[in-house]
Amino acid sequence: MTDLPKFVHIREEGLREGFQIEPEIYPIEKRAALVEALAETGLKHIQVASLVNPKRVPQMADTPELFARIKRRPDVAYTVLWLNKKGFLRALDIPEADIEGGLFLSASDAFCRQNNGCSADDLQEQQREMLDLYLEHDVPLKDIGIATAFGCYMEGDMPIARIDSLVRFAKELCDSRGVAPETLFLADTVGFGNPEDVRRRVGAVREIWPEVAVGLHLHDTRGVGPANFLAGLEMGVDRFDASLAGLGGCPFAGHKGAAGNVCTEDMVFMCQEMGIETGIDLDALIDCARMAEELLDRPLTGKIMHSGSLGAYRGKAAE
Amino acid sequence: MTDLPKFVHIREEGLREGFQIEPEIYPIEKRAALVEALAETGLKHIQVASLVNPKRVPQMADTPELFARIKRRPDVAYTVLWLNKKGFLRALDIPEADIEGGLFLSASDAFCRQNNGCSADDLQEQQREMLDLYLEHDVPLKDIGIATAFGCYMEGDMPIARIDSLVRFAKELCDSRGVAPETLFLADTVGFGNPEDVRRRVGAVREIWPEVAVGLHLHDTRGVGPANFLAGLEMGVDRFDASLAGLGGCPFAGHKGAAGNVCTEDMVFMCQEMGIETGIDLDALIDCARMAEELLDRPLTGKIMHSGSLGAYRGKAAE
Repeated sequence: MTDLPKFVHIREEGLREGFQIEPEIYPIEKRAALVEALAETGLKHIQVASLVNPKRVPQMADTPELFARIKRRPDVAYTVLWLNKKGFLRALDIPEADIEGGLFLSASDAFCRQNNGCSADDLQEQQREMLDLYLEHDVPLKDIGIATAFGCYMEGDMPIARIDSLVRFAKELCDSRGVAPETLFLADTVGFGNPEDVRRRVGAVREIWPEVAVGLHLHDTRGVGPANFLAGLEMGVDRFDASLAGLGGCPFAGHKGAAGNVCTEDMVFMCQEMGIETGIDLDALIDCARMAEELLDRPLTGKIMHSGSLGAYRGKAAE
Repeated sequence: MTDLPKFVHIREEGLREGFQIEPEIYPIEKRAALVEALAETGLKHIQVASLVNPKRVPQMADTPELFARIKRRPDVAYTVLWLNKKGFLRALDIPEADIEGGLFLSASDAFCRQNNGCSADDLQEQQREMLDLYLEHDVPLKDIGIATAFGCYMEGDMPIARIDSLVRFAKELCDSRGVAPETLFLADTVGFGNPEDVRRRVGAVREIWPEVAVGLHLHDTRGVGPANFLAGLEMGVDRFDASLAGLGGCPFAGHKGAAGNVCTEDMVFMCQEMGIETGIDLDALIDCARMAEELLDRPLTGKIMHSGSLGAYRGKAAE
């Protein structure tokens, strides 16, 4: 498999993905401590929280205070998610946040109405304004994300032609402003993807926009997430979102049909075992997953956090 | 990926793998009902229980009674696991059990001493006797299994040379008796495998014994099981062991370091989505996983059993 990347970049999404759906709001100092512990593992990109409507997502209401609490490492990006202009302007007011320009598109119209409160076409049009706003504030465009790029519960499977047209729109928009993102992320928001489909969709994006790296944001809703991750690796994909301890929607907490991203530490283990570097200290990351489990006080879905890494056993066996 | 098989055969191992490690002994009529429900899903091979020392594994003490309770389908094999001559002779006394001759080898000597109560070399020698016993009883040799074929906690990673020598031994033994098994299963007993390693080890077996199909028995101890399954598919492997609901060692039940086989219904979902047939009704299988969860009365680790198959959503979306 010669297309395997040598190094994989992981964006840690567990805190945002996980805590936004928890019924409980956990003590801010514990959340800050978890961010700080994650930053010591070698992870270079940690999405700390989101700036969304506090009435809809009260768990994220104290995002600025959370950022203010974190003791920062200079080599780590601490990012925040926003969905619209208002959120972006609030992000600019958080001095501790690393502001990375992102554009957001949705393959499913029905999902977009639910998640973003507007049609997919309207969301698309809003991105022109967002990009101009970034340029106005000297914020470089870093990523483009396509939500429900594999399918959604309301509209079923997403035709590849729909992805193609979104990628073409994004490319034309960027070309018209003389910019390009580093990465275009395909998000399998609710777990419709399979390995063959990952290959087809990654290939489709590259055909239209070969200059831009493709990233994958994979939810492990149906147990195929790690296989989809592998299919991405085999296509040479070297940037993934992942979620500590598999945080983010949990079948055991009454969130039927939801599940977190692929589990960060399990995927780091897979990469390392395949000889792919991640820059991450696996055992330190496993400790973070266990911290999260202690904080949430219920079993999380990550696997290696419960079984342990192989380092210790290998050491013992070599004695 | 042209090596993908068209059809995948799955041996359901959840009942044996799962119930043998549960602290509780569940009502026999419930276990029988679960076997019967599994047989209605299209699964053609169900390992019902094992015949091992009832003092060591009291959960399997009523294996003959369990078999007697099951209403059988004629097109399903209901099998039982034994580890030695004594177990095999007990199996012959169960009229309802489908007797499939199997030879067992262990790559790790330390694991073998723990699991089989003898050295790996002694186990190897015992297999000559086992094979002769099968021939004597007109029981055809069906499978050979190599435990800890990827590594074990006591001896660490298993060199491929060790697998090679076990496969050569098995081949010479079979050749000397003029028989051959249908399948040689490589077992990742405690989750040391990774996708690259799966490819290497499957390739190594085929090189030595090209006439015999390679099967995989993968435990999902570190979250890489589904990716290892995919790596197997990509090598053209078309026979796997799997475990309903991921049964078989659960981090949530105090079995640190243990985990079940890859989850049957999640893997069936992956196959189906990739266009690979399994002959299994996914929704019926998910119902069985939910039956198991109800019986064990705690959340099991399977994913699609909690999120649901895509059939319903697709139907809705197509309306």
